[in-house]
Amino acid sequence: MFGRTTTRGFKQNHFYRRFHARYQEESRGKHNYYKYAYIAGASTAGLLSFQTIKTVKLDHAKTDEKLLNDSKKFPLYNQDEVKKHGKSAERIWVTYKDGVYDVTDFISMHPGGDKILLAAGAAVDPFWALYSQHKTDEVLEILEGYRIGRLDVKDVPKAEPDAFSNDPERHPALIVRNAKPFNAESPPSLIGDHFFTPNELFFVRNHLPVPDIKTEDHRLTIETRNGKTIDLSVEELKKGYKSYTIGSVIQCAGNRRADMHQYKKVQGLMWEGTAISNAEWTGVRLRDLLKKAGIDVFDENIKHVHFEGADIDPTGTPYGASIPIEKARGDEVIVAYHMNGVDIPRDHGAPLRVIVPGNVGARQVKWLRKIIVSEKESDSHWQQKDYRAFSPAVNHGDELNWQSVPSIQEYPVQCAICTPAPNIEVDRDDGTVTISGYAWSGGGRGIIRIEISVDEGKTWQSCELQQDEKQDVEHMYSWTLFTAEVPIPADVKKFNIIAKAVDRAYNTQPETASGIWNIRGLIHNAWHRVPVMVKD
Amino acid sequence: MFGRTTTRGFKQNHFYRRFHARYQEESRGKHNYYKYAYIAGASTAGLLSFQTIKTVKLDHAKTDEKLLNDSKKFPLYNQDEVKKHGKSAERIWVTYKDGVYDVTDFISMHPGGDKILLAAGAAVDPFWALYSQHKTDEVLEILEGYRIGRLDVKDVPKAEPDAFSNDPERHPALIVRNAKPFNAESPPSLIGDHFFTPNELFFVRNHLPVPDIKTEDHRLTIETRNGKTIDLSVEELKKGYKSYTIGSVIQCAGNRRADMHQYKKVQGLMWEGTAISNAEWTGVRLRDLLKKAGIDVFDENIKHVHFEGADIDPTGTPYGASIPIEKARGDEVIVAYHMNGVDIPRDHGAPLRVIVPGNVGARQVKWLRKIIVSEKESDSHWQQKDYRAFSPAVNHGDELNWQSVPSIQEYPVQCAICTPAPNIEVDRDDGTVTISGYAWSGGGRGIIRIEISVDEGKTWQSCELQQDEKQDVEHMYSWTLFTAEVPIPADVKKFNIIAKAVDRAYNTQPETASGIWNIRGLIHNAWHRVPVMVKD
Repeated sequence: MFGRTTTRGFKQNHFYRRFHARYQEESRGKHNYYKYAYIAGASTAGLLSFQTIKTVKLDHAKTDEKLLNDSKKFPLYNQDEVKKHGKSAERIWVTYKDGVYDVTDFISMHPGGDKILLAAGAAVDPFWALYSQHKTDEVLEILEGYRIGRLDVKDVPKAEPDAFSNDPERHPALIVRNAKPFNAESPPSLIGDHFFTPNELFFVRNHLPVPDIKTEDHRLTIETRNGKTIDLSVEELKKGYKSYTIGSVIQCAGNRRADMHQYKKVQGLMWEGTAISNAEWTGVRLRDLLKKAGIDVFDENIKHVHFEGADIDPTGTPYGASIPIEKARGDEVIVAYHMNGVDIPRDHGAPLRVIVPGNVGARQVKWLRKIIVSEKESDSHWQQKDYRAFSPAVNHGDELNWQSVPSIQEYPVQCAICTPAPNIEVDRDDGTVTISGYAWSGGGRGIIRIEISVDEGKTWQSCELQQDEKQDVEHMYSWTLFTAEVPIPADVKKFNIIAKAVDRAYNTQPETASGIWNIRGLIHNAWHRVPVMVKD
Repeated sequence: MFGRTTTRGFKQNHFYRRFHARYQEESRGKHNYYKYAYIAGASTAGLLSFQTIKTVKLDHAKTDEKLLNDSKKFPLYNQDEVKKHGKSAERIWVTYKDGVYDVTDFISMHPGGDKILLAAGAAVDPFWALYSQHKTDEVLEILEGYRIGRLDVKDVPKAEPDAFSNDPERHPALIVRNAKPFNAESPPSLIGDHFFTPNELFFVRNHLPVPDIKTEDHRLTIETRNGKTIDLSVEELKKGYKSYTIGSVIQCAGNRRADMHQYKKVQGLMWEGTAISNAEWTGVRLRDLLKKAGIDVFDENIKHVHFEGADIDPTGTPYGASIPIEKARGDEVIVAYHMNGVDIPRDHGAPLRVIVPGNVGARQVKWLRKIIVSEKESDSHWQQKDYRAFSPAVNHGDELNWQSVPSIQEYPVQCAICTPAPNIEVDRDDGTVTISGYAWSGGGRGIIRIEISVDEGKTWQSCELQQDEKQDVEHMYSWTLFTAEVPIPADVKKFNIIAKAVDRAYNTQPETASGIWNIRGLIHNAWHRVPVMVKD
C-alpha cells in the first residue's frame, strides 16, 4: 500500500538501519546489554510506537529543546491542511505538539501495525497520553526524522488530563515495568509460596486505563448472529447459571521477552520471567450463556466467539479479542466473577472477566461487557495486528505481513526458575543449591516432567512437582510449581542452572532463542538459564 | 519387586555396565557410529528383548557353538523343575533351546517391561520365533550370563514353523528395518512426489505376523460398560453409517530413533526419518458407532476407549491400545475401511483400522475387531509398558518405573528433510541446493511455518509449504510438505542444512537431543540436520 521507494522513504529507512546497525555493533558479544541499551517504546499494543533504542553512549542524541530549535526552519501548517493528509490520502501526516510529520514511509515498519492510521491527518498527542512509553528522547528523535513542518500554535492540543489518575492502588511488591498503562510482574521470590497467586501479587497487564465499573450497573450483552441480544446483570449471571471453579494460569505473550532480547534485540515491554500467575476462578460456563442466548454451539457457521472489554482507547474502540468456537464451547471456558474466592479486583477485570484456560492472556478479556458469535475472528487490533509471532526470517525494518502468521491462542510449554535470582553467589561448602520455579503449557496439556541441568544439558536431574489436586494430566490449566536440590559442580567459578519442562503431548522447549526469535519478542520459551557464582 | 542386590545380580549388572562403557568409549566423538555399532535387539514391543549392542570389534564375542560347549558343566533340569520357577516364584527361570536361565535379576532392566514374565517357568522359544531380532550373538551372550543349567533333551521345544510365512508381498522400494515382524520405511526420495503416500510406499510398522482376514467373515464388536455388545460386518458398517474422509498422518513413536542414537545410545528399531506417511482414510465416525451401541459419550464414568486388533501374540493376547474419551468422541476419529480410496491393504489393517488423527501410530489399531469403553486405560503391554518416553535422567540399567510417565498420545511438532540425502556432494557453481521434506504436529495443530538454516541457526529462511486443501490450521491432520532453495554458504567445505517447524500452538522443536534423549529413543524431534559436502 505504501511503497518505500521515495527519496524520503529511503533516507529514513537508511537512518533507521544505520541506527540499528550501530546498536548491534555496540551490543555484540556483550552479556550486559542492559548497561547500554533497552527498548523504551513499542508496547505490545503500541499506538504510533516508533521502534526505539536508548543507548547511554548515543552521541547523536538530541534533547527535546534542540529539536525544537532545529524545527524553526520548517514551514507552518494549520490543522485543516494537516487534515487533508488523512488515512485515504497519498501522503499520511500526523502532528505531535507543534510538529507536523509525514509518516507515510514509516507505516509499514510500525510495530503496532496500521493502527498508526487512527491518528492520520490529526494529532498523536491523545494516543501518546495513553502510551507514555512514546515520550522518550529516542522516539522523538525518530519522529523528527519525518518532520515536514510546524503546526500553527492555535491548533496545538492542550495537555490532556492524566487518563490513569483513577487507576487502583497496587501492592508495592509488584515489579512495575510500565506505569501508564500499568504493567507489573509478580515478585519471583514469592512465586513458590503460593500455588494460587494472591490477587494483590498477581501480575498485571493493562493496555489502557482501568475502567471503574459499579457492579450493580454493569451489563453483559450477548449478540447472536441474527442480531438478537440478551443482556444480564452480574447478579442475574450469578443466580441464573451453574457456577464452576477452575485453577487457571494467565500468562502474557511477552513473558520472558527480556531474556529473548539478550539473544537479539526485540521490541516491547521488557518483561522478565513472571508475567504469569495462577488463580482459582469462579464463574459460569460460556457455553451455558451461549445456549441461553439461543445459540447452537455446533452451528457450522459459527467459527469464533468475540469478547469486548469496557477499556476504551481514545478513538472509542474497546479492547477486543476472539477465540475459536471449539474452545469456546469447551467445559473449561467461563465468565468469571470471583478470583481466588473474592470479587475480581479492578486491575483483573472487575466485575467480569472471560477465563480461557490454556490460552494466552490477551484473549482473556477483562471488564467483559459484550460477547458476539461470528464466522470470523475479531477485527480488533490486538487480534489482527498484535500478539502474532513472526518468523526469525523477518527482521527489524522489514514490512510486516500480519496475515502471514496466526493469532496466538494456545501457549506452548513454558518453564522458568524463580529462585535463586541470577548472579547470586553460593558457598561451595553448602554443596547444593535449592531451585524453585514454575512450568505450564497451553491447551490443558499437563506438565509431565521438569528437569534441571548444571552442566549445560549434558546430564539432567528430575524435580519435585506440585500440581493442582483437582486437575489431571489431560486437563491441567493450573501451573506446576517445582523444586530441586542441585549439586554445585566441581572446579567452576560460575555455572548456569538450566530448567526445562515436558508437556502431555511430549512438547519440549528449544535450547536457545535461535529458532524462535521474533521481532516482537513474543512467546519466549527457550530453556531458562540462571547464572550462579561459586565462592570457594 | 526383584532386588538387584544378590551377587549374581551384581555381577550381571557389572558386566552390562562395562559393556556399555566400552561402547561409549568407542563411539565418543565419532559421527560414524554406524560403522562400529548398532542395536540389534530390543524392538519397541520386544518380548524378552535383551538390551544388546553389536560391535564389529567385539573381542569377547562368542559363537553359539562355544556357548554350547561351555554349558556342559551346568546341571541338568527337566520341564517340571523349570515350571516351579514361574512368575510367582522367588526366582524366575526360563529356557531357550537346551539352556536353563535364572533371569530374576534381569527383569527390572528388560526394555519390554515385565512382559518377560509371560515366559516364566517355560520356554522363550515361541516368543523369539516372533521376534527374530533376539537371535543374535550378543543376545545369546547376555542370556548365557544368566545360565544355571541344561534342559533335558526330551523337553527342548521343536523348531516352530515360520509364523510370518503368510505375510503379504511388499513393494521393493520400502526400506526394510526388520523383516519379521515386518517394519519398513517409506523411501525418503519419493516423499515429495506424493502429498498422500501411495499405499504400497506407506511405511509399515507391524508388531506381529499379519492376520489374513476374509472381509466377509470379519466382525467388529463394540462392548458397552454394561457388558452389552453389538457386532457389525464390514458391509453393515459401510451401509449403516455416514462415511467421512480425512487426510491423516501415521507416525511411529520411534521415527528418527537412529538420529537420537547418534546423540547417545538408545534401544529399539533403528528408524531413520520416514517411519511416517500420510493418507486419506475413509470410514465411519467412532462416535456414531458408540452412540449406536447405546453409549453416552459424555457419560462421566467413561474415560477411555480401547481397541483390539486381530494380531495375536504367542500367549493369545491381541495387540491393544486405548485413547481418552475426549479424543474418541471428536469429529476426526474414524473406523476406516478405505486407504486412499481403496480397501485398506493387509499390511495396514485390512479390513478395518481405527484412525486417530493427531495421535501416535501405536493407538491407531490395525485389523480392528473390538472396541470397549472403560474407566481405565488399556491394560495392554503396548499401552502400559511401551510407547512411554522416560526422562533423560533415566539411564540404561536403571529400574524402569513405567507409571512415572504417561502413555504417548498426541505427538509433538516434527520436521525432517527428505532430500538431499546426508553427505551428498554439491557443486559450488550451482549456487544453491534444493531442499524438500515434511513437518507435522499432533492434536490437529497445523504447521504455521518451516524454516531452514545453513549457518547452524544464526539466520533462517522460510520455506514454501504444501498443505491439505480440505484442512485449516486448527484442524490439520495431514502433514505439510515443504521445499526451499538455499544458498551454498561461502568458504566452507561442509555444512549442515537444518530444518525446523512451528505448530499452531507455537510449539517448536529442540535444537538437539540433549533435553529429550530417552533410553527407548522415542519421539525424537530435534532439529533435523543434513550434512552436505561442497566441491569447489
